[in-house]
Amino acid sequence: MSTAIYPGSFDPITNGHLDLIKRALNLFDKLVVAIADNPEKEYLFTTREREKMVKQSLKGVKNVEVLIFSGLLADLAKQTNAVAIIRGLRAVSDFEFEFQMALMNRNLTPHTETLFLVPSENFTYLSSSLIKDIARFDGKISEFVPRIVEKALKMKFGFN
Amino acid sequence: MSTAIYPGSFDPITNGHLDLIKRALNLFDKLVVAIADNPEKEYLFTTREREKMVKQSLKGVKNVEVLIFSGLLADLAKQTNAVAIIRGLRAVSDFEFEFQMALMNRNLTPHTETLFLVPSENFTYLSSSLIKDIARFDGKISEFVPRIVEKALKMKFGFN
Amino acid sequence: MSTAIYPGSFDPITNGHLDLIKRALNLFDKLVVAIADNPEKEYLFTTREREKMVKQSLKGVKNVEVLIFSGLLADLAKQTNAVAIIRGLRAVSDFEFEFQMALMNRNLTPHTETLFLVPSENFTYLSSSLIKDIARFDGKISEFVPRIVEKALKMKFGFN
Amino acid sequence: MSTAIYPGSFDPITNGHLDLIKRALNLFDKLVVAIADNPEKEYLFTTREREKMVKQSLKGVKNVEVLIFSGLLADLAKQTNAVAIIRGLRAVSDFEFEFQMALMNRNLTPHTETLFLVPSENFTYLSSSLIKDIARFDGKISEFVPRIVEKALKMKFGFN
Amino acid sequence: MSTAIYPGSFDPITNGHLDLIKRALNLFDKLVVAIADNPEKEYLFTTREREKMVKQSLKGVKNVEVLIFSGLLADLAKQTNAVAIIRGLRAVSDFEFEFQMALMNRNLTPHTETLFLVPSENFTYLSSSLIKDIARFDGKISEFVPRIVEKALKMKFGFN
Amino acid sequence: MSTAIYPGSFDPITNGHLDLIKRALNLFDKLVVAIADNPEKEYLFTTREREKMVKQSLKGVKNVEVLIFSGLLADLAKQTNAVAIIRGLRAVSDFEFEFQMALMNRNLTPHTETLFLVPSENFTYLSSSLIKDIARFDGKISEFVPRIVEKALKMKFGFN
Repeated sequence: MSTAIYPGSFDPITNGHLDLIKRALNLFDKLVVAIADNPEKEYLFTTREREKMVKQSLKGVKNVEVLIFSGLLADLAKQTNAVAIIRGLRAVSDFEFEFQMALMNRNLTPHTETLFLVPSENFTYLSSSLIKDIARFDGKISEFVPRIVEKALKMKFGFN
Repeated sequence: MSTAIYPGSFDPITNGHLDLIKRALNLFDKLVVAIADNPEKEYLFTTREREKMVKQSLKGVKNVEVLIFSGLLADLAKQTNAVAIIRGLRAVSDFEFEFQMALMNRNLTPHTETLFLVPSENFTYLSSSLIKDIARFDGKISEFVPRIVEKALKMKFGFN
Repeated sequence: MSTAIYPGSFDPITNGHLDLIKRALNLFDKLVVAIADNPEKEYLFTTREREKMVKQSLKGVKNVEVLIFSGLLADLAKQTNAVAIIRGLRAVSDFEFEFQMALMNRNLTPHTETLFLVPSENFTYLSSSLIKDIARFDGKISEFVPRIVEKALKMKFGFN
Repeated sequence: MSTAIYPGSFDPITNGHLDLIKRALNLFDKLVVAIADNPEKEYLFTTREREKMVKQSLKGVKNVEVLIFSGLLADLAKQTNAVAIIRGLRAVSDFEFEFQMALMNRNLTPHTETLFLVPSENFTYLSSSLIKDIARFDGKISEFVPRIVEKALKMKFGFN
Repeated sequence: MSTAIYPGSFDPITNGHLDLIKRALNLFDKLVVAIADNPEKEYLFTTREREKMVKQSLKGVKNVEVLIFSGLLADLAKQTNAVAIIRGLRAVSDFEFEFQMALMNRNLTPHTETLFLVPSENFTYLSSSLIKDIARFDGKISEFVPRIVEKALKMKFGFN
Repeated sequence: MSTAIYPGSFDPITNGHLDLIKRALNLFDKLVVAIADNPEKEYLFTTREREKMVKQSLKGVKNVEVLIFSGLLADLAKQTNAVAIIRGLRAVSDFEFEFQMALMNRNLTPHTETLFLVPSENFTYLSSSLIKDIARFDGKISEFVPRIVEKALKMKFGFN
């Protein structure tokens, strides 16, 4: 049984993430969605809030496991016996950083490949941070995030 | 009458900004220079200081309006009936972020186009943050910023 | 009255070109679609065929002039009193070449600005050469080119 | 059983290609190495020569099928029921072209994902055309191509 | 006697830095390794710690001077009569920022050229910040940094 | 005595090339300007014409040797005992190809470093091919090439 990991901050999860998760599930038997809990980073939503939104957005989707991790991705890959780490590529600037990470992760865990997928063209300009910038001023985000995330953002920024 | 918006931090305004403003004024009847007041961001100069420097640098220039905004650029575009948002492009890394913003803004305000202009080659390596890095150590910046900005930077960093 | 030029090979014209033409028409009083006739370059369609397809695709669109040119774009800009040259930007590799051309054209004709527009995200992966590659093997291109172009491509490659 | 396609010119096959083939075989049950026979393109080696070198380089490797194709990659993907198209990514310029191709191929065959893999860092500067440039002047290529390819290149350029 | 400067944060020094220092020493009579002490930046190691690690890593290497600087690089270039500033280039994103800096530094000190060198391909994915990310979780870094740096990182993050 | 090589097509030599040659001469005792004679490539000017233009443009410049080469650059580097190969970097797309070449050349001749220099910002948009495109239509090129090259281009394209 082949397992892949899809790591990220998911702060919050967007329709672009969901698109990629569905594409990855066509390729592997199981997908581990790994929510990063990095003490060096500041998040808008707490780890629990991010986990809850991911889980609710994936309700009914099979062969997905959602977990929180706060160590080396390479170690998680070994623990889960993952053959692949999945990453979405939108832009050249993504590409370079991702490329470095992929080579470093291969060094740390040689049996796991990093695979880059192209998101749907409708989501090429979508990112969690752009969504937060718009939500902060009560801009329209309904077509970019699940309903539950839209609500959580409105609450967080005091609109309702 | 066609209106365009030129948004930015202008922290502080440089000769590169002024070059672009003059180019944009050849294309549109009116240009709104929109100074961002983003509570999430740290500026060297206060909003009022940045506004004052922009206004003094544009003294005598016709068809320009200077204002401060702290919401969605898309909303400002609608309020001002702008047909275009003007952005300067210097580098590939600019390009990708700008590209995403342009697509998102089109989504939020379909009747406003984002237009990219190329600054003069004498200003390709000029940015407000580079100017601040040099001014901090009393380096020569006189050919890159208006006289009033040079003075304000010297004052801010305690040189005179 | 403000005039802009939209130069290109249009070999053949695609829905991406048409999208850009409509966006440019919102910004300027008149748009000159300038079809390049470069003796150094090999085209699939003759200059007349390319002109015919452009004209038919723009039937009923106002304020557009279609012409063939085979000299310096800068000279055409001067002759037509154009304030702007319009270019679509899809990718970083476009950007660099376009950037160089823009600076050179500004040197040759200082009163004409090059403006970059972002095409609709549905056309980010569309190019005339990609369309030709697909049409060559009778692949589906109907959503990417006008009906008349689809027919011309089928005829050119011997499918009907 | 999951099948992936690895398309290319393989003119000639290099150790970088072989590295990628082995990585892909860890991820899928079967890999189809698809050698392009594009009448618009000029190759150094004939289709048969390229096929022979690929087959000999893969002698003993299981779950690989080598074939020649000369139509749309999307059609081949449908015929072979491939879930994935495999591409190696070395550089930003690769990335943009590949990105466009991936989106177009998804449009033509929605059930096949394009997956990008990162080659070993020892092969980041390796390409078939660079190898040919060096072999043309009898430069040292032994660490970059299989022995059989090295011989074929020497023969082709009249060294032995 | 020709002198070059190799400026950086060295927070901490890696084998990639050491590779570049040795390459630069083949080109110039003397190399000044200039450790930046920028009050605007947060470092993991103190200036003294960074200096100590650089000096110990370069023990026995001739024609190198290690110093700390906290002003304009251009001023240091003038003081040391440097004909060149050495920078390593790994990625496109490096390139653009470095390009701007090089043009600005040329403006400030016209007699000093910025020279870009390519690090060994084994270090293309190596950076001080990536090393710190891995060391933070006690990952394997021994092949990327000198022994003394590995120890210092373990101590800093509380592993031993 | 340190020698560097500056290889290129010089078809024809431009003021951008001359700028780089002068910068390189400040760094090395001797510079070998190596004009490529590649049978696979088509040039506008013959090898002799290109050599003549380079030599006349460099009249009076000391420590420069002009030669024609038609093999591996790495072999020329060994023969001339060059410590460095000089390349100008203008754009990201240059950068990637140059990066690959630099790594390959280091593999073929480990004792020669490739050094990238930044041309003057006045020449960032200058290239031999752009110059030819403009000269073909009798456009103004006098500020971009030496007088002798301007004349040769006019003659070649039948203007005088």
